[in-house]
Amino acid sequence: MAHDAPLSPLAPTTTPDIPPLEGVRFAAGAAGVRYPGRTDVMLALLDEGTSVAGVFTRSKCPSAPVDWCRARLKGGKARALVVNSGNANAFTGKTGVEAVKFSAKLAAAATGAPENRIFLASTGVIGEPLDASKFDGVLETLAQEARADAWLDAARAIMTTDTFPKLATRKATIDGVDVTISGFAKGAGMIAPNMATMLAFAFTDAAIGAEALQKLLSKSVRGSFNAITVDSDTSTSDTLLLFATGAAKKRGAPKIDNASDRRLADFRKALDSLLLDLAHQVVKDGEGARKFVEVTVTGAESAKAAKRVALSIANSPLVKTAIAGEDANWGRIVMAVGKAGEKADRDRLSIWFGGVRVAHKGLRDPSYDETQVSQIMKRDEIVINVDLALGKGVATVWTCDLTKEYVAINGDYRS
Amino acid sequence: MAHDAPLSPLAPTTTPDIPPLEGVRFAAGAAGVRYPGRTDVMLALLDEGTSVAGVFTRSKCPSAPVDWCRARLKGGKARALVVNSGNANAFTGKTGVEAVKFSAKLAAAATGAPENRIFLASTGVIGEPLDASKFDGVLETLAQEARADAWLDAARAIMTTDTFPKLATRKATIDGVDVTISGFAKGAGMIAPNMATMLAFAFTDAAIGAEALQKLLSKSVRGSFNAITVDSDTSTSDTLLLFATGAAKKRGAPKIDNASDRRLADFRKALDSLLLDLAHQVVKDGEGARKFVEVTVTGAESAKAAKRVALSIANSPLVKTAIAGEDANWGRIVMAVGKAGEKADRDRLSIWFGGVRVAHKGLRDPSYDETQVSQIMKRDEIVINVDLALGKGVATVWTCDLTKEYVAINGDYRS
Repeated sequence: MAHDAPLSPLAPTTTPDIPPLEGVRFAAGAAGVRYPGRTDVMLALLDEGTSVAGVFTRSKCPSAPVDWCRARLKGGKARALVVNSGNANAFTGKTGVEAVKFSAKLAAAATGAPENRIFLASTGVIGEPLDASKFDGVLETLAQEARADAWLDAARAIMTTDTFPKLATRKATIDGVDVTISGFAKGAGMIAPNMATMLAFAFTDAAIGAEALQKLLSKSVRGSFNAITVDSDTSTSDTLLLFATGAAKKRGAPKIDNASDRRLADFRKALDSLLLDLAHQVVKDGEGARKFVEVTVTGAESAKAAKRVALSIANSPLVKTAIAGEDANWGRIVMAVGKAGEKADRDRLSIWFGGVRVAHKGLRDPSYDETQVSQIMKRDEIVINVDLALGKGVATVWTCDLTKEYVAINGDYRS
Repeated sequence: MAHDAPLSPLAPTTTPDIPPLEGVRFAAGAAGVRYPGRTDVMLALLDEGTSVAGVFTRSKCPSAPVDWCRARLKGGKARALVVNSGNANAFTGKTGVEAVKFSAKLAAAATGAPENRIFLASTGVIGEPLDASKFDGVLETLAQEARADAWLDAARAIMTTDTFPKLATRKATIDGVDVTISGFAKGAGMIAPNMATMLAFAFTDAAIGAEALQKLLSKSVRGSFNAITVDSDTSTSDTLLLFATGAAKKRGAPKIDNASDRRLADFRKALDSLLLDLAHQVVKDGEGARKFVEVTVTGAESAKAAKRVALSIANSPLVKTAIAGEDANWGRIVMAVGKAGEKADRDRLSIWFGGVRVAHKGLRDPSYDETQVSQIMKRDEIVINVDLALGKGVATVWTCDLTKEYVAINGDYRS
C-alpha cells in the first residue's frame, strides 16, 4: 500500500466472493511502477466477440489512457483490459501518448489481440512519465496465468489509497437464461504529491451489442457513479468500462442489440444495483470518511433540478463538517439549497434527518426532539431528506462527511 | 465574542484609523440578542439626501432583511442603517418578516426617518426567531449617542466569529474636490449550531445619484467581493451596501448622476481599492485560514471563462488542502482546470507558484528547483498563476487554505 491509512470504519464486514464469469479471465502482477512489494498491474483477457461500453471523466484535461479508450470504444469490441496503479499517466504530454501506445503494443503481443481492441487505464501519480517498458515480460506472464477466479487479485492490483478492495456481483435473467454481472472499482485517493482516480470495471456474460450496452451503461451511471461525490473534485482519469462477453449465448441467452428490448428489464435492474453497490463502496472509502450520507431531494421543479440541489448539499463543506460533528445543522442545508441556483422557496422547505422532520415550511419544526436527532446523528449512515414542495422532481445522491483526517491525508503537511 | 478563536495569523498588524465622513454618524450598543458582554447592534445615521446602492446574496433562500433591503433600494434613498449580530433572522418565515418590519418601525421612531429609508442587516444564528423588541429603547439611545468618529465601534458590533474588525478608507478627487470612501465588513463565520454571513457597508461623502451609484457598485464588486471564496458556500444573508451622503457638495463637489461620467474615474479606482481591501480582509479571517492565496488565470477564451477556471481552482478542496500542507501540487491545479468545464488543453497549460514555473505545455517543467518552490510554499501569501494559452481572458480571485482548524471550527464535534 502506498498509504498506511487504517481500514475505513465504513468498510463492509465481508468481501464478496465473485464466481467465475464465462468469457473473462484475470491475472495480477508486480511491474514495479511505483509501489514496492505489491501487485500494480492487472490483465483481463476477454473472449472473441466481447462488446464494450464506457463512460469517462468530464474533465477537459483527461489523461492519455482516457483519450485512448474513448477512441477505441467506437469499434465496440474488446479483447483485453490492462490497468496499472502507481502512475496515472496524466498530464504527461506526448510522452504519455507514447506510453499508452507502447502499453497497447505490449498487451497485443502478449495476448494476440489486435491493438485497437485493448483497453487501458492508469491510476496513481500524475505528471510523471509512465515507463511502459516495465510491463514488458510481465504482461506475457499474466496472459499465461490468467484465471477465471482471480477477481480479488485484480481488484487489489488497482488500489491506491483505497483501504479495502471493492467488488460486487449480481444475477439476472434474460429471456429465462441466467446471466451474471460482476465488477470491481477503486476510489479516488491521494498519493503524495499527486492525485489518483476513480476506476470501475464491470463484466457480464450476457450477449448485448455494443451500442445497446452503451445506452444501458450511460443510463445506469446517472443514478450511481454520477450520483456520488467525496469532495466535488473530478479526476482527470475517471473511467468506467462494461464488457459483455456474450458467453451466455451458449446457454441459450439471446443476443440483444436494442437497449429498449423488454427482455433486458431484469438485467437493467441488476446493472443498476451492481453499479450502485460499487459506487457506494467508493464513497465509504472516501478519504477520512467516518459517515456515509444519503441526500434525497423531492418536490423540485424537475429531476435535474433535484439532482443539482442534492449535489449542492452533498458538496457543501459546511454541511459535510456539520455531519462530521454529528450536528443536525439544517440551517446549512437551507444555505446549500439556496446556493444551488435552482428554484426554491424558503417558506415551503422541509428538512428531515433520519426521518425526523427538523424544519417545516420555512421554520424550525417546533415539535422535534433534539435528543432523538442527536442519537440519529451518531449513526454511521445519515439520511437527509429535503422537500422543496414545488414540483415532482426527485433525486438521490451519496457522499461522506468532511473530517480533519481528509485534510490530514490531502494536506500532506510535509513541511 | 461568540467564539474564542485565536487571532488569524493573516490579520493586519494595525487597524486603520477611519476619519469622520461628513453626513454619517455611528453608535453601537448591547441589545442582548445572543452574546453577553459585548455590543451587538449598530446604528448609522445618514443625512437627508443620502443615496444608496446594494448587492446581495444570490441565494434563492435569502434572509428576511435581504428581502427588505432589496425592496427599499428601489427608492434610492437612505436615512439609517441598523445591523445586529447574534441572529441572522434567516429561515424564520413570517415571524422573520414581522421582525424586520418591527425593527424598521423602531428605527424610524428613534431616528425620525421614514421606514422605507431604513436599511437593515442581521448576522448570526439562522432559523431562530429574532426578538426585535430587544432593540426597543436601545435604538433611541444610539440615535442620541451617534458620533462621526465611532467607526471602530460600529465595525466591532457586527462581528460574529471574526477574529479582527475589518475597516478600510480611501481618498479620491471628483472634479478637483477631495472625497472619502470608508467602510467596514464582517466575514462568514460559524456560530453553533448555525451559519453566519458576509456583511459590508461603505460610505462616501461624494454626491452620486442612486442609479449611478448602483452601476459603480455592481461593477466594482465583480473584481472584489465576487472574486473571493473561503469555502464555496454562499450565505443566505450576504449584503453589501454603499451610501453616498453627498456632503462634499458643500465643498464644491458636483452631483453626478451618470456612472460613465469621466469625473468619476478616480472615485471608481478608490472604490475598487476599498472593496478589494475589505474583501481581502474577509478572506484573511476565513475560518482556520493560515495562508492567503491569489489565483490568476490568463489565456482563457474570455474573462468569464478565466474567472470560472480560477474559482474552480480556488474552491477545490484538494488544491486548498495541498496549500495547507505547503505542497506545490500542480497536478491538482490541472485537475481543477479540467473540471471547470471551460475549454482547456492540457498540452498548452503552464502553472507557476510564486512566479516559479512548475509545469509547462502539458509537462512538469524539468528546470524547476524544488527547494526554491518549497520555500515559496512556506510563505503566508501564495500566488498561483495558470496560463491556458488559448485566448486573452484574464481573471484573479482570492481564497485561503483548507486546514484541520476549518473542520474543527465548523465540525463543532459536540458529541
